[in-house]
Amino acid sequence: MISHPAYDIEPWCLRETELNLGLLAQSESVFALSNGHVGWRGNLDEGEPHGLPGTYLNGVYELRPLPYAEAGYGYPASGQSVIDVTNGKLIRLLVDDEPFDLRYGRLHHHQRVLDFRTGLLHRTVAWTSPAGSTVRIRSSRLVSFTQRAVAAVAYEVEPVDAEIRIVLQSELVANEQLPPVPGGDPRSAAALESPLVPEENFARDTRLRLIHRTAGSGLQVAVAADHVVEAPAGTTTSAESTENLSRLTLTTHLHPGQTLRVEKFVAHGWSSTRSLPALHDQVEAALFSATHTAWDGLRAEQHTYLAAFWAGADVEVDGDAEIQQAVRFALFHVLQAGARAEERAIPAKGLTGPGYDGHCFWDTETFVLPLLTYTAPQAAAQALRWRFATLPAAQERARQLGLAGAAFPWRTINGSECSSYWPAGTAAFHINADIADAVVRYVAATDDDAFAREAGVPLLVQTARLWRALGHHDPQGAFHIDGVTGPDEYSALSDDNTYTNLMAQQNLAAAAHLVSRYPREAGLLAVSGAETASWRNAAARMSVPYSTALGMYEQSAGSTSHEVWDFPATGPEQYPLMLCFPYFDLYRKQVLKQADLVLALHLRGDAFTRDDKARAFAYYEALTVRDSSLSACTQAVLAAETGHVELAYDYLGEAAMMDLSDLEHNTRDGLHIASLAGTWTALVAGFGGMRHHEGLLSFAPRLPTALSRLAFTVLVHGRALRVEVTRRTATYSVPAGEPLEIQHYGTPLKVSPLSPRSVTLPTAAPEGTAPDQPPGRRPLRRSAGGAPPVG
Amino acid sequence: MISHPAYDIEPWCLRETELNLGLLAQSESVFALSNGHVGWRGNLDEGEPHGLPGTYLNGVYELRPLPYAEAGYGYPASGQSVIDVTNGKLIRLLVDDEPFDLRYGRLHHHQRVLDFRTGLLHRTVAWTSPAGSTVRIRSSRLVSFTQRAVAAVAYEVEPVDAEIRIVLQSELVANEQLPPVPGGDPRSAAALESPLVPEENFARDTRLRLIHRTAGSGLQVAVAADHVVEAPAGTTTSAESTENLSRLTLTTHLHPGQTLRVEKFVAHGWSSTRSLPALHDQVEAALFSATHTAWDGLRAEQHTYLAAFWAGADVEVDGDAEIQQAVRFALFHVLQAGARAEERAIPAKGLTGPGYDGHCFWDTETFVLPLLTYTAPQAAAQALRWRFATLPAAQERARQLGLAGAAFPWRTINGSECSSYWPAGTAAFHINADIADAVVRYVAATDDDAFAREAGVPLLVQTARLWRALGHHDPQGAFHIDGVTGPDEYSALSDDNTYTNLMAQQNLAAAAHLVSRYPREAGLLAVSGAETASWRNAAARMSVPYSTALGMYEQSAGSTSHEVWDFPATGPEQYPLMLCFPYFDLYRKQVLKQADLVLALHLRGDAFTRDDKARAFAYYEALTVRDSSLSACTQAVLAAETGHVELAYDYLGEAAMMDLSDLEHNTRDGLHIASLAGTWTALVAGFGGMRHHEGLLSFAPRLPTALSRLAFTVLVHGRALRVEVTRRTATYSVPAGEPLEIQHYGTPLKVSPLSPRSVTLPTAAPEGTAPDQPPGRRPLRRSAGGAPPVG
Repeated sequence: MISHPAYDIEPWCLRETELNLGLLAQSESVFALSNGHVGWRGNLDEGEPHGLPGTYLNGVYELRPLPYAEAGYGYPASGQSVIDVTNGKLIRLLVDDEPFDLRYGRLHHHQRVLDFRTGLLHRTVAWTSPAGSTVRIRSSRLVSFTQRAVAAVAYEVEPVDAEIRIVLQSELVANEQLPPVPGGDPRSAAALESPLVPEENFARDTRLRLIHRTAGSGLQVAVAADHVVEAPAGTTTSAESTENLSRLTLTTHLHPGQTLRVEKFVAHGWSSTRSLPALHDQVEAALFSATHTAWDGLRAEQHTYLAAFWAGADVEVDGDAEIQQAVRFALFHVLQAGARAEERAIPAKGLTGPGYDGHCFWDTETFVLPLLTYTAPQAAAQALRWRFATLPAAQERARQLGLAGAAFPWRTINGSECSSYWPAGTAAFHINADIADAVVRYVAATDDDAFAREAGVPLLVQTARLWRALGHHDPQGAFHIDGVTGPDEYSALSDDNTYTNLMAQQNLAAAAHLVSRYPREAGLLAVSGAETASWRNAAARMSVPYSTALGMYEQSAGSTSHEVWDFPATGPEQYPLMLCFPYFDLYRKQVLKQADLVLALHLRGDAFTRDDKARAFAYYEALTVRDSSLSACTQAVLAAETGHVELAYDYLGEAAMMDLSDLEHNTRDGLHIASLAGTWTALVAGFGGMRHHEGLLSFAPRLPTALSRLAFTVLVHGRALRVEVTRRTATYSVPAGEPLEIQHYGTPLKVSPLSPRSVTLPTAAPEGTAPDQPPGRRPLRRSAGGAPPVG
Repeated sequence: MISHPAYDIEPWCLRETELNLGLLAQSESVFALSNGHVGWRGNLDEGEPHGLPGTYLNGVYELRPLPYAEAGYGYPASGQSVIDVTNGKLIRLLVDDEPFDLRYGRLHHHQRVLDFRTGLLHRTVAWTSPAGSTVRIRSSRLVSFTQRAVAAVAYEVEPVDAEIRIVLQSELVANEQLPPVPGGDPRSAAALESPLVPEENFARDTRLRLIHRTAGSGLQVAVAADHVVEAPAGTTTSAESTENLSRLTLTTHLHPGQTLRVEKFVAHGWSSTRSLPALHDQVEAALFSATHTAWDGLRAEQHTYLAAFWAGADVEVDGDAEIQQAVRFALFHVLQAGARAEERAIPAKGLTGPGYDGHCFWDTETFVLPLLTYTAPQAAAQALRWRFATLPAAQERARQLGLAGAAFPWRTINGSECSSYWPAGTAAFHINADIADAVVRYVAATDDDAFAREAGVPLLVQTARLWRALGHHDPQGAFHIDGVTGPDEYSALSDDNTYTNLMAQQNLAAAAHLVSRYPREAGLLAVSGAETASWRNAAARMSVPYSTALGMYEQSAGSTSHEVWDFPATGPEQYPLMLCFPYFDLYRKQVLKQADLVLALHLRGDAFTRDDKARAFAYYEALTVRDSSLSACTQAVLAAETGHVELAYDYLGEAAMMDLSDLEHNTRDGLHIASLAGTWTALVAGFGGMRHHEGLLSFAPRLPTALSRLAFTVLVHGRALRVEVTRRTATYSVPAGEPLEIQHYGTPLKVSPLSPRSVTLPTAAPEGTAPDQPPGRRPLRRSAGGAPPVG
């Protein structure tokens, strides 16, 4: 599992040199291109064979009824599902009289390269048709970071040894047929078959356009394309269009040495409110801009954009080439998910696949936004401004639930709740504190005053109101939050979940603090002094359950007295447990799907002593089975902090290889964006020891044996702080700007452009025995030399 | 609400003298006839107008898929729904050339009488058609207690003032059209439309027959009819049949003074296994037996059967004529639900309506079987033998859930789980202890050795195994049962629910005890000495949560520290709460839908002191809103025991009038059989103070001011113990048999045929202030003279 035979290990790209049809769907996810607004799965240009065709526009979904055999008050009646919109990628080819289809004939050469620095996906193919005609194809594809509606393909075909007759069909296709959902609910598949209702179709000269709308959600979707053709004389073109297909056809003869080159520019647009002519004009304008920029211009813009990103975001890892590649793959895909999402959600799978129905969860704020906050802060701001835009829906949901403030949805596309299973949906109120945490972190890292004023105050005030309404003071004054579900999905409906309570505590205190900074904005929300006092009081008196018997904080009140899961009796084929055991049994026993209290040890590390952390981490290691991809990175961070850097390294490997090695066997449905971001977190917060509590940026670096050097850059207060860690020293530097105050292992350090600070790492205590995981659930050993130490 | 204008108050019957079309569906439930095998709703003979037509055969259901937007392991894939089978009640009439339909013309007289002593439903009507023809109709109907497949109708029509032309159509109708389910799920309605697939139809002379099968569940249903006609000369008859209709038509002229009389005998049968010819012969044989017995014979058998029942079951109440009527109504309907169920379930609505999909719940064992055990023990035995017959399904369910022994379904018709909402289904494991409790009670009351050996041992052993697997010993040895749901449906997934734990304790101890009595049968189940020791140990070390702060047992561990529901902010229109508030909020706060710990105070009263009971009853009174019909009777019992007999009397009124006054506005869907049984419980266990712990039968009678006398009979050890209570004395007598040892207010008493024992009641302590209920949730005051003290 460490090494995936399909991909070469290279520092700045992902290269595939064999086409394995069984892995096609997984490769379509890893080779997906996106800018956060438009997503193109890495489908082959010719459309088939495919694992799962996919073109997504952030925010475009169809409604589907949520069925209940026994309904209850407050259950959402309808859900949202991302849909496959009009496919602009397609370029089909007829070679002599046979379709170019890799399932037939002979494939001499296949290569795909995703270049993290240029943002292009390149493909080269050499193929002989069953009838013996041989062609070479080169294509490059991009989804523009600079022109958010635009994607483009440059496609070249040439004969290898004899003249061939070529027909090339460049298409827009709507309502393309999708493979059946494996094990899926037949109702939801039916509802989402052919979701696009034709509104307009057009084809003339080299220009194509299709406009559709969704029947239930009432969204209009427009996709238009134009082409630049370089072809031998005698090439004929024709354009035609029907409701679901708009097509440019080129017919020509190519002699060896001749090339047919087509540049295809595709513009995408959608709207719930604008008129058909307005949307029509919008995509035409975007298309005009793209053709005006031209292929070389789009490539250059893409490169410039990414160069700026990497300058502020790159992570260098010496000693593990696979991790070096994986962290850049991760940074690239997380950027793709969020770069131009612009007041739309960042879904759990980004725009790389339809998994989780295209929904956004707490993953975004808790796992993805930390990375974006310190590397692409404008993307973090936009994601939080999307939450702000959905505040009215969250306030309505809170009212419906009999609460105050805002109750953000557990899973959503448009801001309204899509979770039909309330014990792990409605009850998981921590998402509200997670959003607040992301707001606090973003403001602390950027000093973005406009954001704090416009979005930060309302988000913190309404979430603080929720917590105040959700909890209660007991007769002794302690504040309790009962009957809620924390991060761990193998527990539910507990009293005083430590993670939830500590995150709510921060939420309440931060709201009171921000309100004091922005009294005018607070006044518009009718925040009174009495109200902020009540928040401060609830925060100050927040209960944090502690087991005196164990001398340890516990996940929730009384949870450590529950029966421990019978791990020895659980076979490896019974994981993930939720597919083999009922929730009732998982919930009532000590077994964790994912970090819960341990996540609190990371995000609210300021609330615990070092001993607290060591004890709790060891205790919960033995109970955590990691059936969730949202766990390894957090365990890496706490393993590193508690002195188990080799174990942390193993967890880093798991987070980093989640999709490249398809560890959970569902990368076909899209990438695990949070786990990708966790790769960065494991390195920066784990081995870099970075924390950012109460505005104080601190580091406590320590490398595992395999790594000789780790270097990363984080953007704080508008400056790019570079941290370089070797086995003995850490060097902190800023290229420009005011000095920056940080801490290194608790010692204050002032870093200025003139004085990079190089400090020796404290001698590590001898690494004690690492805590045990449940039998069979130890992460793969990376620390034992799994990867060659290539620089 | 105390008095229902539609029904007169009479001691031995229920009389309706007005036809209120708005109350038709409710009246069809209260006038339903059943023997536990066949159920005929009280639909008018002519079929329309109707509220809800209904003919039910116990055990006949159709499957329907249970939809889940987010499915989970162990969720049942399909549910069962009772279906309206072939209707044999129908006798349509054409008067001159107008259909006899009470929605038109003029109704001069309407009366229906349900006679509790004869078991007949009589109807008399005088009606003038829109065209001016006046007829008088008399019909009587019975569902035979002695011939369980058989129902019969005697129908007479006569002209009042002029000759009329009559066409009478006596029919069997399958797949009759049902009114839409109000607010129901359209899917379930669709699945159950026309559930019967035609197999055979027949009509010749006066004989009719229809045989169908259900498409999904594969059950064959046969209904046959024969007729005896007394008609003037010149009457012609014809019979015809199609797939869903079999009809006998009589045409005649009647002069004033002439009567057309039709006796219709209907036989019902169903089978999942027998062949079509076998089923055909079965209903023909039953029909032959019925016609051979003839109408007068069936009537006589019915009367004899009921006379025997009333001799061992009647409850006399002096001082409240409405309660006198209500308790006999209740006894009659509970008998109807269980008399001939014979190894089929007793559904929550009996066979009086389709409510709760015709499912059987814990209601049967906990609320219905106590009454049947002491008044119709053979019916109690049959109900428990049905559970025994479903043991294989319950054992399979336990295996599926990763448990040992048997996990009985929360709701079912055929023995497999139909509950799609696991927090209030799968997690409500107490149903297993409730079944065990009913077994223990039945065996204690009857000394039925064959039952104990054949069904009792397996039921107790497999449920004990479940508890042993479900709970765990903590390091100190205490036994805990975590994460289960007790009786109260406004709480869920608690640790150490007191009711569940105490009932499990009794289950474990009783299993160990019965195994020692029947070692051979236990051996067949591979029960070892080590296993029974583990049961005894778990029972001995069972945790019962106690709040030291309150000096009181609590509903479940830590539950008394939850926030109390904001009752003052809850308006009367917001009840029942589950229709206006989300489960998450109900579950995490102190608010009870129904008695939970208070039910434990009754059923495991031996585990509490008098002070424990008084404190806990008062505490939970203030939190219990009675949104369930399964609460008032239990609150009556505990109110009486803790010295609040006037409050107990109020609760008695609520339990007794649940259906007669339609207190929950859903009697249309069928009667609340458990609440009806609770009327008996409130009188016998409440004012009679009857308890039966560990084989010891005890009484502590005390009457409320309004009542001057209460007398009841209970069957124990094959003897009919009569208890007569006045304001000052209690008299215990047995007409025959060995002496009986009982207790009166803790004093042993030997009652023999020769020596009835009359004892003075102890002086009552002055009745203290009754505990408060939540604002607006006090039961209607019956104690303040709501009902006239008519003897």
